[in-house]
Amino acid sequence: MTPTVSAERVRQFVTGALRAAGMPDADAHIVAGLMTEADLYGADGHGVFRTAHYVRRIRAGGVNLKPNIRIVSERAGMALVDGDNGMGHLVMRFAARTAIEKARASGVAWVGVRMSNHAGPALLYARMAADAGMCGLYFCVGNANHLAPWGGLELLLSTNPVAVAVPTLDEPVVLDMATTVAAYGKVKTYAQQGKPMPEGWMIDRQGRALTDAARANDGLLLPLGGMEAGYKGYGLALVFGLLAGSLNGAAMGRDVIDFNADDSSVTNTGHTIVAIDPAAFGDPDEFRRRVDRVVRDLRAAERLPGVERITVPGERSAAKHAARAAAGVPIPDALKANLDKLAAELGIPTLEQ
Amino acid sequence: MTPTVSAERVRQFVTGALRAAGMPDADAHIVAGLMTEADLYGADGHGVFRTAHYVRRIRAGGVNLKPNIRIVSERAGMALVDGDNGMGHLVMRFAARTAIEKARASGVAWVGVRMSNHAGPALLYARMAADAGMCGLYFCVGNANHLAPWGGLELLLSTNPVAVAVPTLDEPVVLDMATTVAAYGKVKTYAQQGKPMPEGWMIDRQGRALTDAARANDGLLLPLGGMEAGYKGYGLALVFGLLAGSLNGAAMGRDVIDFNADDSSVTNTGHTIVAIDPAAFGDPDEFRRRVDRVVRDLRAAERLPGVERITVPGERSAAKHAARAAAGVPIPDALKANLDKLAAELGIPTLEQ
Repeated sequence: MTPTVSAERVRQFVTGALRAAGMPDADAHIVAGLMTEADLYGADGHGVFRTAHYVRRIRAGGVNLKPNIRIVSERAGMALVDGDNGMGHLVMRFAARTAIEKARASGVAWVGVRMSNHAGPALLYARMAADAGMCGLYFCVGNANHLAPWGGLELLLSTNPVAVAVPTLDEPVVLDMATTVAAYGKVKTYAQQGKPMPEGWMIDRQGRALTDAARANDGLLLPLGGMEAGYKGYGLALVFGLLAGSLNGAAMGRDVIDFNADDSSVTNTGHTIVAIDPAAFGDPDEFRRRVDRVVRDLRAAERLPGVERITVPGERSAAKHAARAAAGVPIPDALKANLDKLAAELGIPTLEQ
Repeated sequence: MTPTVSAERVRQFVTGALRAAGMPDADAHIVAGLMTEADLYGADGHGVFRTAHYVRRIRAGGVNLKPNIRIVSERAGMALVDGDNGMGHLVMRFAARTAIEKARASGVAWVGVRMSNHAGPALLYARMAADAGMCGLYFCVGNANHLAPWGGLELLLSTNPVAVAVPTLDEPVVLDMATTVAAYGKVKTYAQQGKPMPEGWMIDRQGRALTDAARANDGLLLPLGGMEAGYKGYGLALVFGLLAGSLNGAAMGRDVIDFNADDSSVTNTGHTIVAIDPAAFGDPDEFRRRVDRVVRDLRAAERLPGVERITVPGERSAAKHAARAAAGVPIPDALKANLDKLAAELGIPTLEQ
């Protein structure tokens, strides 16, 4: 059993670390809150796990700790936000709130973002719209290029994720997916555990299936669709990137900074969040009932042999959130060692203290 | 070599057939023009091929030939269009024009549609935005359920397609894809030709790979992602369906009418088109140059062994459009026989006359 730590303690620890790195109190509190939510939803690569990386970037001067996050262009159906190189979580929270507020008047509001940074898992921002009773659509340019164009060898695209949230009578439907077969983080986990990857996740530079996770650095992630239809995943990664990056004046393609390898360059990360108010389309309660009926029909559908349950997107992450809120966030030994080292460097209490 | 017929003659033939079925002249001209564009772009299942099917539906009273296509709800960032059960092409043309016009003022406009019908290939409507210098995003609920939820056996979802168009300095980037590995039309083509399908397109009702196209009726299309990550394609089909169907008060899930099997029931087809004006985000010429640079970088990328060319989405359909505009639209013998029979029934000249 992996040891666990309460979500409240995780939030305090991350807040303390960001403050010790120089982030203003109120901002540290907001960022730590969103990172802890990422852990609760099971997005383990986006929560407390990222603390040391973010602190390193802040200390290298890669992030502006006093950003002037602001709307630089605005019309009735849209706004363009400049994040002034602030922490991505702060910029995206501002953008999502702007979209929701504008959508109350305009019905639908599309908010583009430039000059932002890594903001954690996509689902956080789509869910903000659902929490306000709206549908949310989020996509962004990822912070490292792990994807080649279909038929190519050069890593010119990120695994640009998309998230869509739709409210129901109960928990929202929340899709959050990278446009590759497997997310890069999953490959890294297999490499750490010395396990072979399933065929279809990666190919080598000759175009053959690559299953040895230790050789991942020589391989290429397959876009969603795999060997059969990977041109579709490539197409999705490209158009989401053009809309979240190029349209907003943010980095895209060759301009994307690998934020794992470079701590100090401005990433100019682009995101897009769209809030859609069902009240503009008719009775919002009627809408929720319609969605709910679809969800119930899907769950009750006849199943393939051996399948125990049919789920809708967002169901597993919501269940994980409930379980971890009760039992705590799992902190594997390697992560604990990393956080203890960080605590010593920053002169703050360790996670367990 | 498949015999060809000029695009102009295809357009005249379809116009004549729709008029003979009772459609007003101006509407028949518009629908035939869009169907011919489908043929030119290579969407062979959506062009002149559909004429007999549409005529059958019109004669069965399944389509309203005098629709009052109108906006029933409107705010600055959105509109909801009721198609009054008119031909889908007429309804979607109205919706796309509404979105483009509104986006000139609002920057971005999201237009939902209900009470529409099959409208041909998704790319037509996303391209309308690109022709106006805008980005276009289109998705819809398909007109037959060919997809089960992930792990399920019941066909409760359509292969809901999505199209995205982004202008460049030259031809736009245009993605148009179904959310399954293979489109159902492709499976039917393999069955007609007696060819085995590649593994990964379909599974049988025990969850095993199905490659015998003749047995397609007993099988299930795999959602995009296939055996490895098909839950992603399932998620995309679901959320696009909720946004284009449930949100607009259109059919979704169990309510979807199979328009191949049922000629007379109102399909209440839902679509969504979003127009995004780059001028609201900054200098639109600068935007086109940025997109163009990304496209050129992708095309020039180092290639996998054996790959001759890297393309971006929309490149092949644009090349096909140019080739068919010059050389004509291919009309296979079986289609010719079908159209000759239709011409005799309607008392109009055959395609070649």
